Amino acid sequence: MAVCRALETPDDIAADVATILVAADRRGIPSHGTARLPSYVALIDAGVMDARARPAIDAGRGAFVRFDAGNGWGHHAGRIAIDWAIESARTTGIALASAHNANHYGIAGWYSLRAAGAGMIGLSMTNTTGVVAPTRSSVGLIGTNPIAIAAPAGHRAPFSLDMATSTVPRGKIEVAERRGTPIPLGWAIDADGRPTTDPSAALVGALMPLGGREETAGYKGYGLALAVDVLTGVLAGATFGKRIAGLFDTNAPSDLGQLFLVIDPGAIGDAAAFGERLGDYLDGLTAAPMAPDAPGRVLVPGEPEVAAEAASRTAGVAVDPEHLAGLAALADRFGIDRLRPR
Amino acid sequence: MAVCRALETPDDIAADVATILVAADRRGIPSHGTARLPSYVALIDAGVMDARARPAIDAGRGAFVRFDAGNGWGHHAGRIAIDWAIESARTTGIALASAHNANHYGIAGWYSLRAAGAGMIGLSMTNTTGVVAPTRSSVGLIGTNPIAIAAPAGHRAPFSLDMATSTVPRGKIEVAERRGTPIPLGWAIDADGRPTTDPSAALVGALMPLGGREETAGYKGYGLALAVDVLTGVLAGATFGKRIAGLFDTNAPSDLGQLFLVIDPGAIGDAAAFGERLGDYLDGLTAAPMAPDAPGRVLVPGEPEVAAEAASRTAGVAVDPEHLAGLAALADRFGIDRLRPR
Repeated sequence: MAVCRALETPDDIAADVATILVAADRRGIPSHGTARLPSYVALIDAGVMDARARPAIDAGRGAFVRFDAGNGWGHHAGRIAIDWAIESARTTGIALASAHNANHYGIAGWYSLRAAGAGMIGLSMTNTTGVVAPTRSSVGLIGTNPIAIAAPAGHRAPFSLDMATSTVPRGKIEVAERRGTPIPLGWAIDADGRPTTDPSAALVGALMPLGGREETAGYKGYGLALAVDVLTGVLAGATFGKRIAGLFDTNAPSDLGQLFLVIDPGAIGDAAAFGERLGDYLDGLTAAPMAPDAPGRVLVPGEPEVAAEAASRTAGVAVDPEHLAGLAALADRFGIDRLRPR
Repeated sequence: MAVCRALETPDDIAADVATILVAADRRGIPSHGTARLPSYVALIDAGVMDARARPAIDAGRGAFVRFDAGNGWGHHAGRIAIDWAIESARTTGIALASAHNANHYGIAGWYSLRAAGAGMIGLSMTNTTGVVAPTRSSVGLIGTNPIAIAAPAGHRAPFSLDMATSTVPRGKIEVAERRGTPIPLGWAIDADGRPTTDPSAALVGALMPLGGREETAGYKGYGLALAVDVLTGVLAGATFGKRIAGLFDTNAPSDLGQLFLVIDPGAIGDAAAFGERLGDYLDGLTAAPMAPDAPGRVLVPGEPEVAAEAASRTAGVAVDPEHLAGLAALADRFGIDRLRPR
C-alpha cells in the first residue's frame, strides 16, 4: 500500500495490488507475491507502466466485454474485470471479460477464487513471455500461459486449479541448479533443442510444455498453452506469442491479454447443490487407495495452497534474503517504516 | 443413416449421427467413428439408450441453458446444443449450453469446429468413464475427459485442439501390446499402482493423466481432467467420476455431462481480423527452427486431422477387418445393401 501511494497510485488501486501480492505469499507462491514489487516499481520508474491508470470497457456485446486495462497495475484491472463478470453472470448466467493493454496480474488463481467466493465457477488466464518450446521446436515461442479454474465445493474449501501449461516453472530449474541436482526429462530442452537433465543447460534452453516429449504427449501441453494465447492475447487484440516482451522488461509495455470468465451454476439449478456435489466428489478422491510409492494421500487442486495459507496465519510467511532486501530498498527509498526488516 | 432408420431414429437425428461418425473416420480417429456403430446399436437393443429421443432445454438464464439430452443419440443432442450456443452468441457475445442425460457424442472436436465454421471460438467437453488414476492414486477414478477448442484462423484451416486429458488413450497401449513393444513411462500404472512400461500390465492397471508421474507434473493433467468433470457432469447435474458406467455398458444409461461454449470474437472487434491474427501466429509456429531429433516441422493443433481428411478424399478411409465385420453384421441384420463389404 505505502509503496503504491508513494508512486501516486490511488488508494483503491493500491489496496488491490497489496491484497493480491500478499495472497500469493500466504498461499505459498512467493514468485508471484511481494517479492515482485521492486520489478513493478522499475516498470513505473522507466515510464512503461502507468501507476495511476484505471481500466475501462472499450468494446462488447451482451455478456462479453473487453477492458482496456490502460497499461496500469494488472492486479487492479484484473479485480475490476472479474468483478464485472461476477456481477454480470448474476443476470446472464455466464459472462466473459477480455482484457488488453494489461500487465502481470500476479497469481491467476486469485481471480478464479474471487468467483468461487461469490458461489460461481471462475476461470482466469493470461498470456506471458515466450519461454516454452512447442513440440519439435528448438526454441521457446509460447508463454507458460496459466489456466486457473475455481468452484465452490460445499463443505470443503473451493476447488482451485491454478497451473502453468509448461511442465514446471523456470524457478524449479534454478533451484535444481543451485542444489547441483539433475532435472527429470520432460522439464526442459537445451540451447540446441535437445531434452536435457542438466539444469544449467536447461536455463539457456527453453521450457517444455506439460507432457514433456512428443512420446509422452507434450503436444497436448503445447496445444493448451497456445489455446490460452488464443483466448487471451489473440482474442483481446493484445500482443501474443514471441512478440511479448519480458513481463518486467523496462523497454516497452507488456500489452498482455487476459481472460476472466464466470459461470453461475445457479442459472440452471440449485447453486448450493452444485457445491455439495463437488464437495462429495473431492471427498471421494482424497479417500482413494494410495499408490505404493506415493508420498502421501491423493490431493485435490487447491489443497496445498489452503494448507500454506493456514500455516502462514500462525507461522507467518517465510521471506528469503533477496526478497527482504528488495522490500527494504523500497522502504528506504520511499521512507516507509513498516517495510523495514525487524 | 440406414442403420439409424432401421432403429426408428428420425431422419434428421440419423443425419447428425452419420455426419459426425463419418467425420471421425475421415479425420483419422477411427476409434470414435463408424466402428462404434455396433456398440450404439447394442445400447438401443438393451433398452438403455433411446433411439428417438430429442434434446430439450430444461433450465437456464440469459446466455446459459441446460439441455436434457433425453438419453438419446449423443451426436444429435451435441449438434443441437452447439447450434443453440452459436446462435445465442450472435446476440449475447458468449453462450453456454450444458447437457445432462447424454450419451457418447463421438469426437469432441466436431462441435468446437462447428463454431469455428461459424466464425466463432468453440469449446466442447464431455466426461467419460473413470479409467485415469489421479496423482498418488493406485486406481482409475476419473475419465479421459477431453477438451476441444477451435477457432477460425483466417487464411489457414481452423485452429483445432481436441485432446484427452490422459497422456494417451487406452487404444495406444493395446497397439503396443499387440506389437510386443514397451510403453514410455508416464502412460500408465499397473494393477498395484506402480508406473509401468509393460503394456499388458498397463491394461489391467489405469491410465496416467497428462504429465505422467508427479515429478513431471502429472497432477496438472489430473487437475484438468477433474476440471472438465466439474464443468460437465458436476455442473449439469449429470453423473461424474467413478459413478459413470462404461459408455457402452448395456446395464444402465451413461447420463454423461457435456459442455458447449461459444465466444463470438465479433462482439469486441473485427471477427475477420481475429482470424488473421491467429493465422499469422500459426504461420510463425510452423516456421520455427526444428529440434535436432524432431521427425518433422512444428505442427499446429488440427493439422494432422486436416491432412487425414484430405487423404481420405482421394484414398478413402482405411477400415480394419473387425470394423468391417461389425458393419457387415449390421447390414445383414437390417437388410442394408450399401454397408456390405465389396
